[in-house]
Amino acid sequence: MRKVRVGIWGFGAMGIGMANMILKKEGIEIVSVCSRSTSGKSMYDVLGIERGERPEVIINKNYEEVFREKSVDVVLLATDSFTKKAFDKIIFLLNRKINVISTAEQMAYPQADDADLAKKMDEVAKENGVSILGTGINPGFVLDLLVLALSGTCEEVTSIKAKRVNDLSPFGKSVMVEQGVGVTREEFIKGVEDKTIAGHVGFVESINMIADGLGWKLDKIEQTKEPIMTTVDRKSKYGEALAGNVAGCRQCGYGYVNGEVLIEMEHPQQIIPEAEGIKTGDYVSIKGIPNIDLQINPEIPGGVGTYAMIVNSIPLIINARPGLKTMLDIPVPRAIMGDIRNQIEVELEEESKAN
Amino acid sequence: MRKVRVGIWGFGAMGIGMANMILKKEGIEIVSVCSRSTSGKSMYDVLGIERGERPEVIINKNYEEVFREKSVDVVLLATDSFTKKAFDKIIFLLNRKINVISTAEQMAYPQADDADLAKKMDEVAKENGVSILGTGINPGFVLDLLVLALSGTCEEVTSIKAKRVNDLSPFGKSVMVEQGVGVTREEFIKGVEDKTIAGHVGFVESINMIADGLGWKLDKIEQTKEPIMTTVDRKSKYGEALAGNVAGCRQCGYGYVNGEVLIEMEHPQQIIPEAEGIKTGDYVSIKGIPNIDLQINPEIPGGVGTYAMIVNSIPLIINARPGLKTMLDIPVPRAIMGDIRNQIEVELEEESKAN
Repeated sequence: MRKVRVGIWGFGAMGIGMANMILKKEGIEIVSVCSRSTSGKSMYDVLGIERGERPEVIINKNYEEVFREKSVDVVLLATDSFTKKAFDKIIFLLNRKINVISTAEQMAYPQADDADLAKKMDEVAKENGVSILGTGINPGFVLDLLVLALSGTCEEVTSIKAKRVNDLSPFGKSVMVEQGVGVTREEFIKGVEDKTIAGHVGFVESINMIADGLGWKLDKIEQTKEPIMTTVDRKSKYGEALAGNVAGCRQCGYGYVNGEVLIEMEHPQQIIPEAEGIKTGDYVSIKGIPNIDLQINPEIPGGVGTYAMIVNSIPLIINARPGLKTMLDIPVPRAIMGDIRNQIEVELEEESKAN
Repeated sequence: MRKVRVGIWGFGAMGIGMANMILKKEGIEIVSVCSRSTSGKSMYDVLGIERGERPEVIINKNYEEVFREKSVDVVLLATDSFTKKAFDKIIFLLNRKINVISTAEQMAYPQADDADLAKKMDEVAKENGVSILGTGINPGFVLDLLVLALSGTCEEVTSIKAKRVNDLSPFGKSVMVEQGVGVTREEFIKGVEDKTIAGHVGFVESINMIADGLGWKLDKIEQTKEPIMTTVDRKSKYGEALAGNVAGCRQCGYGYVNGEVLIEMEHPQQIIPEAEGIKTGDYVSIKGIPNIDLQINPEIPGGVGTYAMIVNSIPLIINARPGLKTMLDIPVPRAIMGDIRNQIEVELEEESKAN
């Protein structure tokens, strides 16, 4: 069987992480990269990796030149957080009979935010015999798939609390702005109001995925965003919060079923949490038969966690029946430590039409 | 859509647990129960539950009378630990075009112990358009599926350690014998040699499932069984271990890849572990990119964990393409808190042929 052919659209931190990971794997090759900022350069030069015997990959900003019908088996789309923004790109790719895996947080469960867009993607994917999936570390794993997996050992679930306490320090300038790092309390409140402080995108998706997975009918979802005030000066590579100012954003989400909060999520994100003795980690607590209390310390890191979930989903999305898929539909992604082709159950066409 | 129809074969602790669980769920009914010990009695009387409006279910020891072609959608088979012992029953059911979910530990990954039997089950299932799955809390979840799920967030996995420390106290007399509770060190060593002390069945299955899931080629698996000596008197409902004697069995399993132990499992099982300050729990430690350390305290209990995994897998095995399935092939089972029919993606035949 020939190698699995991959395209990458978007070559920021995520796209680069995926590319580095794929280049270490067997039975898979990167055929094309679409990106504006590094267009015209060799992918290997951007990555700082010796090309060796591998064919050259010149990054190209023109997606119509890069992605042609069946020119790759799957495109990893790492350009947006919101379904609406990624939508046209996804439809373009599906119409070229290419499977798609998206990093967009809303794409982890797009039916939660916009059922019409989700339906459209499902239809176009089915018409073209390919599949579309969104995933990542969160949404996609910690606050949804992991919770659902634990629930499988339960006779009954009466309520769920899940919490992800992480460190924003490794992230860049734009994340510092989105999470309100370094501003005053008043600036934070204003930023939440005018949406310049966006916080975490994904609670609506995670809560809906859990509810649909279990068969609970959600009445509504509420979310809150509060400033995490620091009592000591904190400084990370791209962020700084002086004592008395904001070190990050504590976001909470509440899923109501029959008027009660049955799903509760907490996601405090800040720089240098250890400055005030805060231990990072992922926590799931299920009340039911039985009760289950899980912790992962420290938390599974966000960057590698996301691009690994995307790359590890490649064989599963190629194997899937056509349509819009979520983590409820496919087997659990696992690390790929052997030839990826051993995980592929369908026949890859020997030569793509475009080549 | 009509209700999902279930048969149960074997009505010990597991079968009864499943029945109690199913009777609390919507969109599903128990149609038949096959069991020797309670043959002739009403299932509801054995369970001590009011039958109410539900049709009577008389337990019958004659499986040929109980299970006819398509008389149920799925049989939950809770009679054996070993594939060889369950095999004839499974083939009988598959030939009657009935999906099967087995509690047999070896059935969680039957290709590990006997590739021929696994192949035969796969063929017969496909010929009859149905599926066969084995699962449970362990093997089936803690020391395999949970490990694999975590690995999906990893760029690379270099080694895995997983440990399940549990309390045998709730279990009955036969488990006390199998685990050597109460015997002397010499009796334990002799019991392991002559196989009267069987310990845990499932390491071979879990280690093979992980290796195949990741794409590691196993050289060999080694297992050890050691007595857990107690320094204090311990007494549970069905077991007793005096100070200086054996309180249980510490079993370890080692999966070798390229001459190195990459998968290590430890499963100490004993009565009243808290008598010597031992905390029970499930632990997974992955070395790789990133490292992951997970703990669940206390451990997910064995009894409910197993029958819940079996019942929660019902919609997934009905939805599955025909053949032998493992936890590598189906979406992750989750608690069923709504009408189970909402999780069924195929059409259930309106009336079964036999009715």
